[in-house]
Amino acid sequence: MSMNGAEALLKTMIDAGVEVCFANPGTSEMQLVAAIDKIPGMRPILGLFEGVVTGAADGYGRMADKPAATLLHLGSGYSNGMANLHNAKRAFSPIVNIIGEHAVDHIPLDAPLTSDIEGHASLHTNWLRTCQSADEMPKDGADAVAAAHAGRITNLIVPANYAWTESQGAVPPVAPETRPRVSDDSIAQAAEALKKGQECCLFLGGRALREEGLVLARRIEQATGAKIVCEVFPARIQRGRGRVSVERLPYLGEFAAEVLKDVKHMVVLGTKAPVSFFAYPGKPSVLTPEDCQIHSVATAQDDQLDALQRLADSLGAPELEMPEDPALPAIPGKEEAFTAEAVGAVVANYLPENAIVSDEANTSGIFSYAMYEGAAPHDWLTLTGGAIGQGLPVAVGAAVACPERKVINLQADGSAMYTNQALWTMAREQLDVVTVIYNNSSYAILNLELMRVGVENPGERAKSMLDLSNPSLDWVKIAEGQGVTASRATNVEEFEAQFKAAVEGKGPRLIEVVL
Amino acid sequence: MSMNGAEALLKTMIDAGVEVCFANPGTSEMQLVAAIDKIPGMRPILGLFEGVVTGAADGYGRMADKPAATLLHLGSGYSNGMANLHNAKRAFSPIVNIIGEHAVDHIPLDAPLTSDIEGHASLHTNWLRTCQSADEMPKDGADAVAAAHAGRITNLIVPANYAWTESQGAVPPVAPETRPRVSDDSIAQAAEALKKGQECCLFLGGRALREEGLVLARRIEQATGAKIVCEVFPARIQRGRGRVSVERLPYLGEFAAEVLKDVKHMVVLGTKAPVSFFAYPGKPSVLTPEDCQIHSVATAQDDQLDALQRLADSLGAPELEMPEDPALPAIPGKEEAFTAEAVGAVVANYLPENAIVSDEANTSGIFSYAMYEGAAPHDWLTLTGGAIGQGLPVAVGAAVACPERKVINLQADGSAMYTNQALWTMAREQLDVVTVIYNNSSYAILNLELMRVGVENPGERAKSMLDLSNPSLDWVKIAEGQGVTASRATNVEEFEAQFKAAVEGKGPRLIEVVL
Repeated sequence: MSMNGAEALLKTMIDAGVEVCFANPGTSEMQLVAAIDKIPGMRPILGLFEGVVTGAADGYGRMADKPAATLLHLGSGYSNGMANLHNAKRAFSPIVNIIGEHAVDHIPLDAPLTSDIEGHASLHTNWLRTCQSADEMPKDGADAVAAAHAGRITNLIVPANYAWTESQGAVPPVAPETRPRVSDDSIAQAAEALKKGQECCLFLGGRALREEGLVLARRIEQATGAKIVCEVFPARIQRGRGRVSVERLPYLGEFAAEVLKDVKHMVVLGTKAPVSFFAYPGKPSVLTPEDCQIHSVATAQDDQLDALQRLADSLGAPELEMPEDPALPAIPGKEEAFTAEAVGAVVANYLPENAIVSDEANTSGIFSYAMYEGAAPHDWLTLTGGAIGQGLPVAVGAAVACPERKVINLQADGSAMYTNQALWTMAREQLDVVTVIYNNSSYAILNLELMRVGVENPGERAKSMLDLSNPSLDWVKIAEGQGVTASRATNVEEFEAQFKAAVEGKGPRLIEVVL
Repeated sequence: MSMNGAEALLKTMIDAGVEVCFANPGTSEMQLVAAIDKIPGMRPILGLFEGVVTGAADGYGRMADKPAATLLHLGSGYSNGMANLHNAKRAFSPIVNIIGEHAVDHIPLDAPLTSDIEGHASLHTNWLRTCQSADEMPKDGADAVAAAHAGRITNLIVPANYAWTESQGAVPPVAPETRPRVSDDSIAQAAEALKKGQECCLFLGGRALREEGLVLARRIEQATGAKIVCEVFPARIQRGRGRVSVERLPYLGEFAAEVLKDVKHMVVLGTKAPVSFFAYPGKPSVLTPEDCQIHSVATAQDDQLDALQRLADSLGAPELEMPEDPALPAIPGKEEAFTAEAVGAVVANYLPENAIVSDEANTSGIFSYAMYEGAAPHDWLTLTGGAIGQGLPVAVGAAVACPERKVINLQADGSAMYTNQALWTMAREQLDVVTVIYNNSSYAILNLELMRVGVENPGERAKSMLDLSNPSLDWVKIAEGQGVTASRATNVEEFEAQFKAAVEGKGPRLIEVVL
């Protein structure tokens, strides 16, 4: 079969195992749209804004452990997806972005949509390639897929004229890049530090937070007395009943520093040593004590599970003794206040087996996280890069990757507005996602931050910039406007009934909790 | 009064005439929020997504002819605003972006939100500065305002620690950059070309499309017989009854080339010579005939009105003879089909005196533009850079700049979704904007483009990527969910009644027309 560049690229990517393409195409990507149409094997999923597309690819990558493709329209389409690519980069998610470009002869004419696409695309990756011919295009795609597997974003820029030109056809897959194995020296040094017991903290992130990694970590803890702490914003952590429960470092630097204050050695695996999210006048940004020695064993792109296994082996760590599971939180009674914590208690109690939680509840979720230790086993996904507007799209991607699992999206109102278009994709694809919107009508986190940077007694003009009331958002209408069944809960009883019905049912559902 | 860097910067900008700050701040901008609170003179307007913030600044700049400030949160906040900055750059709108950055000691720690902000910000401007101290910060602001006045975006990156450090205080305004005067040689050459009469086209954009510029252009046409044509996507054109009406070059390259096929000389003023929006297999991208000579007189940043005046003088152009105004289109009767053109006819008939039209109707508006030549005098603003999601935010900014004028936003459904959060800002600020959503449940333009790039008989997977039905968006709910009064029209009669009521009233209103 004769193929143009777009078809050869697409066929190659399908052969390399890419099954889903989150897309928001424009004119310069029409050949790729046509190729998806013609060649079976790629499921196209439309997002009505590119932040949905890239965030969904992030969620998919976290859950599928392999890349989805995205289809983005030139530099402007890419830029709309950048905030969630920033988050995905920090999550080390595998993603292959296919970015359409004008035909090469058209670029120097500086048509209205012309921009420096390489300049855009280089901000999120060191794997960036612009196709140079229709014949080379499929190999570029194979390389992009292979490189993405190692936990990174790959950006392939496709000039339209190569997409529509006859090519030599698809090429075989390239072997996925493997994760580097940590050196024996690093393992030995880390083991020495861990032997110091309580003076040492094993600080975990990345793949180390999968069930298997946490079992190894707990065995190391039991062998040495070193304390396990998990990074503030894990891309994916496996937790709940029957699993190893680890302390998560608090978001607020003051509390985080308190957790780490006696640590003299920190063994870091799957992440970096912790620093505060923001800087504050007169406060330290580094969260470990000044005299703490950092031993970085494995980055988020190294083979972290292998490193943990070798550490456990070298320490002769005994088999795991699991403690009893923590209790589930009590659901507050009718008369009690309807708070974010009450919502957390209900969700934890009714969380379905093997659920996936996409958590962008921010301030509203901060004190509920621990409630879920005794809930049914689940995967918890967080806002890795701090660019808000990630929770809804990540839920979309997780639901596409795992159609048999229920996805629960815990979502702050301010953040939800950023990529509210994800609701439409949930409706169109009938994704099994229950979104819980914590509507507190404010950027609550910023009221806190305003104080933390030293602003006391803010006046009306300042408060107006942190306030989402006047008018309050009506999330039931916003969801229904995009085809998602929605309801509102104003007390615990209503919320419990609505959430129970939502998890017992199937398909997209939104519950607005008014706090 | 002692001032920190943020306060000194803000006071300086207010003294330099900046009155409005479209904002979506985060923690790193809290000192600037506090400064806006403390120092009178700057109106903060919150957008719930940065694309609203930057698009509003664009609309404000087009109508006020001076910059608004924006307040953006780090690289990720900036990237959310990039698509509309791309459009604003193509509109040569004056904008001063204040972009928060981490404290300088915090940057090397690579906290989650750290990114290459200069790399982001350099994509839209050659005026980019990162503040180097609290003392220099106000002068940086004064320079940014002065440079923006010449019709460009200026990007000022403000590290948080300089914002909170004591500074020497505000500095006086810097004289706005003036627009370069075109050389006498250029004028003389253009005059020679224009003297060739019908063989010559005077191709206009930018400031030349203001009422005064068009009068000069028409006088030149009357003196020489050269034909006036306006660029495809003007940032702002003044038109309607009693004004000079000019032909607008069609969007579709085939039609544009037809308009220009006999042109041997093109005098270009306030824009560049026309090229097609996209490239298509086997079709030329340059829209002027091969033997056409291009005479570029003035760019969109030069002093275009001065150039036109000197051209008119050198050609001894007589005073304007205005033809009769074109008739208003007839409003179709009850029995006739409810089409985009019927909507255009109603809007044209009821357009209030001195209205501002923010046009992002795309496919639905393409055949209605000419209907407004006989409407009440108005300003028409278009999608200059092709990055969709501009119409609603530009309407916000125009309404803030001109509170006494009615703003009509003609809006395609697909594009409206990109920055639907603008509706909330319209509600909060009670802006006098009537939004008309053309709901055709598709990216209609892309169905056309799919054919134009040579894809025939697209199948289900392709069509699903261009289709916005299943589910259809309910714009009444989406608007009401954000506090905007809304209604739906399914025939001409309903639309006429709703539009009439909307323009007679005051405040934000949305009408969904179902086509």
